[in-house]
Amino acid sequence: MKAEIIAVGTELLLGQITNTNARYLSQQLSYMGIDVYYQTVVGDNLNRLKQAIELASSRADVILFSGGIGPTQDDLTKDALAEVLGRSIYIDPASMEKVASFFEGRDITMTENNRRQALVIENSHVLANSTGLAVGIAIEDKEKYYIVLPGPPKELQPMFENEAKPWLLEHVLTDEHPIYSKMLKFAGIGESALEDALIDLISAQSDPTIAPYAKEAEVTIRLTTKAATEKEAMTKLKNMEAQIRDRLPNHMYADQNISIEEQILLMMTGMKLTLTAAESCTGGLLMQNLTLIPGSGNVFMGGVVCYSNEMKEKMLNVPHELLEGENAPGAVSPEVAEVLADEARKTLDTDFAVSITGVAGPGSSERKPVGLVYVGLAERNQPTQVFELNIRGNRESIRVRAAKSILYRLWLRLSELQKESVK
Amino acid sequence: MKAEIIAVGTELLLGQITNTNARYLSQQLSYMGIDVYYQTVVGDNLNRLKQAIELASSRADVILFSGGIGPTQDDLTKDALAEVLGRSIYIDPASMEKVASFFEGRDITMTENNRRQALVIENSHVLANSTGLAVGIAIEDKEKYYIVLPGPPKELQPMFENEAKPWLLEHVLTDEHPIYSKMLKFAGIGESALEDALIDLISAQSDPTIAPYAKEAEVTIRLTTKAATEKEAMTKLKNMEAQIRDRLPNHMYADQNISIEEQILLMMTGMKLTLTAAESCTGGLLMQNLTLIPGSGNVFMGGVVCYSNEMKEKMLNVPHELLEGENAPGAVSPEVAEVLADEARKTLDTDFAVSITGVAGPGSSERKPVGLVYVGLAERNQPTQVFELNIRGNRESIRVRAAKSILYRLWLRLSELQKESVK
Repeated sequence: MKAEIIAVGTELLLGQITNTNARYLSQQLSYMGIDVYYQTVVGDNLNRLKQAIELASSRADVILFSGGIGPTQDDLTKDALAEVLGRSIYIDPASMEKVASFFEGRDITMTENNRRQALVIENSHVLANSTGLAVGIAIEDKEKYYIVLPGPPKELQPMFENEAKPWLLEHVLTDEHPIYSKMLKFAGIGESALEDALIDLISAQSDPTIAPYAKEAEVTIRLTTKAATEKEAMTKLKNMEAQIRDRLPNHMYADQNISIEEQILLMMTGMKLTLTAAESCTGGLLMQNLTLIPGSGNVFMGGVVCYSNEMKEKMLNVPHELLEGENAPGAVSPEVAEVLADEARKTLDTDFAVSITGVAGPGSSERKPVGLVYVGLAERNQPTQVFELNIRGNRESIRVRAAKSILYRLWLRLSELQKESVK
Repeated sequence: MKAEIIAVGTELLLGQITNTNARYLSQQLSYMGIDVYYQTVVGDNLNRLKQAIELASSRADVILFSGGIGPTQDDLTKDALAEVLGRSIYIDPASMEKVASFFEGRDITMTENNRRQALVIENSHVLANSTGLAVGIAIEDKEKYYIVLPGPPKELQPMFENEAKPWLLEHVLTDEHPIYSKMLKFAGIGESALEDALIDLISAQSDPTIAPYAKEAEVTIRLTTKAATEKEAMTKLKNMEAQIRDRLPNHMYADQNISIEEQILLMMTGMKLTLTAAESCTGGLLMQNLTLIPGSGNVFMGGVVCYSNEMKEKMLNVPHELLEGENAPGAVSPEVAEVLADEARKTLDTDFAVSITGVAGPGSSERKPVGLVYVGLAERNQPTQVFELNIRGNRESIRVRAAKSILYRLWLRLSELQKESVK
């Protein structure tokens, strides 16, 4: 089964945006055991788009499109595909109703061009858009399979996962051995150190395969196997997982694809513990990542972005003499990290508090180097811990790593508490 | 002059990495006035690579390759191109010397496969690699131009800038006019409404061209023109910009590619104004976006993530009877948005404060619908304004739009103040 991904949009050819959809779709297809042979990008031009479709139909079995299904006259993907397949195109009444009710509900006048978002092709299956207006379509035509998806990743990804993938499984992958996989997540360790610890397992890998990959301050391992039954697959995956966990017990924080924030919220919800935060150089990043997760309010009460020294004093009672003066340790110091965590925890009377203060750059501050960060962890009836970090990277990555680092410390402590409670 | 970019590498087709090189090269070529018609990604497979080259040669004048020139047997770009052009391939002695001296200088034994990095094609121009070992090549063949570049962006980018671009300017762009462009940024308006307001300009567009595109809660227009001199280009671009600004004076917030956060910080820094924030459902998102910008500390003092009701009461003096009780308006109400903005501003004695409280979903809260958000804008010596939003989308996009929406209101008010001070 060969696939081709066609991303449509002149903005891609002008280099205005990166083709992240091609990566996402390639990854998803690869997990499903479908080999992607080509990725193509073509502009908003009917003739070239039709040529790209004809070429793809000649060399692939499954063709996925991203983009070109919005409201404007530039959005031509469905028109081009209909012409190549020799099928008619029309406004789908059910989809049109949704578009219209979107505008009615908002008291906004719908401009005429928005009708184009409800276009479908004759004899196609409509893929609903749960996060936007333009509907996708799936078509089988002469043993070729076409999937049309929207361009914005936040619309494309749920539509692929909830609509296109089930359709592909039903229509395309009917008699293949299914692929099973499992994600393991790691924190507090870099990709190369992790690879080093598992090098013999990775080298000897055949079944399950072991694929590590790293994102900012987070490493994931994907274990993959093919098997006739789910039970057989799970036995193989569980066995490999146990070997890996044995090697890295203080780093493997989850056996599913969740962030460390999600894992912490799960653990704290279970243990009925509460959390607050005081962020200086990260400016709200840690809290924004925590609160992005539905249900975080059961654990996380809120916190303070104490960006200025004034804020540190007024909101979190940091003594002025710690912050300013000739012999003051300054805002970026273990002393201030400790007070921030302590005071945040006391103010809201939570079980835990985390604090972050540091130099995110680009310039240095208090004559301290870029990347120097202190993170604090306060716990009810326990001494507050402070850790010094020296992070290399730009402003964004220093902030991300600082936040992930104190979350890793919090996870370690929660794991200890869980083990103690089991004893 | 038409161009095609061919990225080579099975890791791209597996979705292991994102094709950022295609974006970089597209952008560079677009700045040079070379139109990219296609981007193609093909795996490390000699036959498919040769087919991709033949196809590109049939439809483009300039063909750029990224990747597939490293030391391993998988690296086949040069071999494939040599076969298609019917030219021989050999180890370039000067390049080989550099590869060998790299290993000698490090006391590492050079494995034989590293010699492949010094491969060049008969009658080609060698593109030196200042940050890596594999050399690139430039070839003219039957009025087609081929540029072979390495895969790692940190090698590709300097090689393009310092080696390939001068070669293209000398061999390909001998008598073309350079291209000039300008970005305009808009807030508080969607892509289709913006297009509607400019439809006649867009339809009639020829020079400059007008290309709108949308990201989450933000629309950008790129104006592009070709001209003999920079002065001529600027006159054309400025003239079109003025027409567009006249149509949308309350939405065009910048004539350069910056976020509304950056624009607000620029204006407030200039006007010596300070800002704080109280975020409930956005959980720190607005503050994290503001503080990501270096120098934000001159304007933004910090603020509060008042996620729980307790936090709203303790940190920002929201009266209990507003939050809870049978007839209380509740946390998601205009009343609470107003108190949050007022109290945040008073506590830190800033010139402005913004507040956000709403239902980000997925579940409803206080029996209020997902997407209902109240945002507040408090200003020293002015009545506090509150706006009701009804946002459609998932949790993430409701949060992003809520934050952008109050920033838009703040920008509008700052624009007014600027106009008043000019009078």
